[in-house]
Amino acid sequence: MPMKVTVLGSSSALPTSERFPSAHVLNAHERLFLIDCGEGTQMQLRRNRIRFGKINHIFLSHLHGDHVFGLYGLLSTFSLMGRAARLHLYAPENYNSMLRSHLADFDIHLNYEIDFIPLAGKKPLKILDDKYLTVTSFPLQHRVTAFGFLFAEKPHDRNIIKESIFRYEIPSVRIPAIKKGEDFITKDGVLIKNEDITVAGPAPLSYAYCSDTKYFKRLSSFVKGVDLLYHEATFDMSLQDLAKTTGHSTSLDAAKVAASAGVGSLMIGHFSARYKDISPLVEEARQIFPLTFPALDGHTYEVGSHVNP
Amino acid sequence: MPMKVTVLGSSSALPTSERFPSAHVLNAHERLFLIDCGEGTQMQLRRNRIRFGKINHIFLSHLHGDHVFGLYGLLSTFSLMGRAARLHLYAPENYNSMLRSHLADFDIHLNYEIDFIPLAGKKPLKILDDKYLTVTSFPLQHRVTAFGFLFAEKPHDRNIIKESIFRYEIPSVRIPAIKKGEDFITKDGVLIKNEDITVAGPAPLSYAYCSDTKYFKRLSSFVKGVDLLYHEATFDMSLQDLAKTTGHSTSLDAAKVAASAGVGSLMIGHFSARYKDISPLVEEARQIFPLTFPALDGHTYEVGSHVNP
Repeated sequence: MPMKVTVLGSSSALPTSERFPSAHVLNAHERLFLIDCGEGTQMQLRRNRIRFGKINHIFLSHLHGDHVFGLYGLLSTFSLMGRAARLHLYAPENYNSMLRSHLADFDIHLNYEIDFIPLAGKKPLKILDDKYLTVTSFPLQHRVTAFGFLFAEKPHDRNIIKESIFRYEIPSVRIPAIKKGEDFITKDGVLIKNEDITVAGPAPLSYAYCSDTKYFKRLSSFVKGVDLLYHEATFDMSLQDLAKTTGHSTSLDAAKVAASAGVGSLMIGHFSARYKDISPLVEEARQIFPLTFPALDGHTYEVGSHVNP
Repeated sequence: MPMKVTVLGSSSALPTSERFPSAHVLNAHERLFLIDCGEGTQMQLRRNRIRFGKINHIFLSHLHGDHVFGLYGLLSTFSLMGRAARLHLYAPENYNSMLRSHLADFDIHLNYEIDFIPLAGKKPLKILDDKYLTVTSFPLQHRVTAFGFLFAEKPHDRNIIKESIFRYEIPSVRIPAIKKGEDFITKDGVLIKNEDITVAGPAPLSYAYCSDTKYFKRLSSFVKGVDLLYHEATFDMSLQDLAKTTGHSTSLDAAKVAASAGVGSLMIGHFSARYKDISPLVEEARQIFPLTFPALDGHTYEVGSHVNP
């Protein structure tokens, strides 16, 4: 499973006895990316046996409490657990000075560095580029400045066909280049085309996180074709006026984005506490986008699998 | 049960999968007093079906995150739930301006007023005096300014002996004064002494909360004779040096305070995350003060009952 998402909180501003406020953990190649950090995130990490030490990147979509209030406890816990590794924090640009002053207010002295990466602007912005993936932020439309995140695996190497190694006597030193697409010339000078000795690797996976936002048409262009789209669905369609005034989406809005972007599947969440049973929200979205499923606290979903419940 | 305490969190700075950070709810005559507000307090309130609307007083012992980080979410939730009633917040004096600026940073607009009562000074201070009880703050000794709280029921009225109402033809209008201790003169002019027509009401109960603090001798004078003492016991005796340098108590320290103050029973808590099994801490305290029991998340303890587990 190269990419999977664990939902730590699927509630909107008011947590319920079943649902904590927003936080997701994306596991990509056993490196963990924490997206939003609502109150109780560190308890949910423990409950789900997720290793704190593997989290080196935290992304905050916006500065509303239900997406941030778990951060102070988590940063503090990292420190108490002896963390020394630098932490990369991606958040709206005005948060850097706030964070430093809040930590000072609470007498928190971290024994590791925070590398703050400011989010700003009206265009998609590549904010992380490493061996396995890129992360791009893009603007959302909410009551305060807010950003979504797109996590995209880089193209995988091609897989070499094992028997061709023996047949053409390919030295192991040449294999990395062949996996990248190079042809091979045998010791007798014969050109062997790459496609004859390799097969395509698995398709790169992608996951996008959109919360909080009201519906806007351009959003689907930012998440075009992702394998798994998480999109907030705070309300059902009957409350679309409330959605508009609060800068949130209905379940149908989320489905419209998913359909228009042609995503693999849609996970909805950030449910208003008024819904004890969220199945009507799922049903509503499925009218437009059948491959919709709800985010459930403590559940892990494979990116790229269409069989998520 | 005129006074009972529900433990919402019994952990020290690092929460565990079993224990949330510090928060207690004292229920005195069906009015709720929240003492400390660690991360996740609002979820614990929900889980324990404690009514948010009955909380009108919140006490913060000191400004370390494991006692405060649940407050922002709770204040915000109060507002989203439509609270209009004024909230009384008792906290170290420098917190007032901090709180206002933190709320502004997170774009939180409360639709109710916070009445801030500053805690300061080196002496016990009566900070609340109402129909049923008084609350007194007293200084603790920690790495930052910290306070304990003593909740003391006011003396109960005497109970009138029912048959004396008929025997002496006591009019109902005279009964409240008699309950307060007045004698009664019959219509024939005979003086009936109060003690002949009443019996003492139940003894007033008291509960004290001491966290966080290192051991100091004078502390026992602040909590003299309380029915139930909650005292932090972050460490066991083998870590007394660590307790000293971090400004915390060992389980034995807590027991020494309880014994010296002659309290009814001792509840210990604020356990370091290193203890999966806290029974050794309880055993250690019981060597000096046998009526010791551990704080357990989600459990409710009667004040004045010596049979708490």
